[in-house]
Amino acid sequence: MLRLKHATGPAWLAKVLPALDELLLEQAHLEKKAASGALTFMFRYVEHEALQAPLSELAREELEHFEQSLAVLRARGIPFRRQRPGPYAERLLAIQRVAEPGRMLDQMLCAAVIEARSCERMKLLADGLSGQGEDELAAFYRRLVVSEARHHGLYVRLAKTCFEPAEVERRLDEILDHEADVLSRATALPRLHN
Amino acid sequence: MLRLKHATGPAWLAKVLPALDELLLEQAHLEKKAASGALTFMFRYVEHEALQAPLSELAREELEHFEQSLAVLRARGIPFRRQRPGPYAERLLAIQRVAEPGRMLDQMLCAAVIEARSCERMKLLADGLSGQGEDELAAFYRRLVVSEARHHGLYVRLAKTCFEPAEVERRLDEILDHEADVLSRATALPRLHN
Repeated sequence: MLRLKHATGPAWLAKVLPALDELLLEQAHLEKKAASGALTFMFRYVEHEALQAPLSELAREELEHFEQSLAVLRARGIPFRRQRPGPYAERLLAIQRVAEPGRMLDQMLCAAVIEARSCERMKLLADGLSGQGEDELAAFYRRLVVSEARHHGLYVRLAKTCFEPAEVERRLDEILDHEADVLSRATALPRLHN
Repeated sequence: MLRLKHATGPAWLAKVLPALDELLLEQAHLEKKAASGALTFMFRYVEHEALQAPLSELAREELEHFEQSLAVLRARGIPFRRQRPGPYAERLLAIQRVAEPGRMLDQMLCAAVIEARSCERMKLLADGLSGQGEDELAAFYRRLVVSEARHHGLYVRLAKTCFEPAEVERRLDEILDHEADVLSRATALPRLHN
């Protein structure tokens, strides 16, 4: 289990709960991006055969969640449209090294951290939604949490099949420090990834 | 049902059957590319909400086939590796217009034609493999054929929800002419897409 170094506080929940439509729209975009990110790995690192099938399965699961997110939007009368993303992912990914194989390791670990953070916040959101009588939506987020928890573990595990486990742990620790710093500069945008 | 204007002859089958390992490797790459192509549409044409869920389902199915193709490679001891693609797709896609919305229509119809051609050749391949006692592999290709047949119909149907059906039919006819021309200049490379 990945130990995040910044705990999301109640201020975040208070900011996003009144902007539920935006958050649900973001969720659909995030699922699609997560699938696309897995595919990017599969194309870029063809020579790592061991990555191919697990990341393909992960991408399928994210796409299924994307379709479920679209169904939630439709049921609530929210149109699917482009949306300004929060700055979180771009700021986090700024830590990535340019040269291989560091780039590959950093990308895998950033993907793991993103999944872990999504997991943490979706749990908070599910609890918050239950408290507001949005039980169906809370159940939807709880189902997503179960998958996301598996996904961040998968990225770390795959990284350890391609790199020295000690190197993976050391770099993961640095990326977690960086992630905590990114969140300390979060914007006011109501997003899971703000 | 899409009517291709060039029927693949026995010479193609005679060329590819002795290069089965290469063909199986190509199959895995083609499935992954088909999934990625569907995702590209989903990102590029966010404003066409009606495309999103059907293409996401299609991408999931292609990824499942990719995983199945990897399992076939593994069972036959063929390593998954990069492979020089046949020239077919690139030559076909040369017909695409650059400016929207023509680009979008052309891309959807080229995707439909590619799926239809794959379908035609996988059927030939399945029959050829049965004749060589490769019954399990023949059954694998026959299962893929069923999906590909659905996929090319889907791309044409989706095109007709975004464009005038008469315009779709007219442009499809031009692209089918172009595709027949591309195949008349096929290379000696043993590929489904040669």
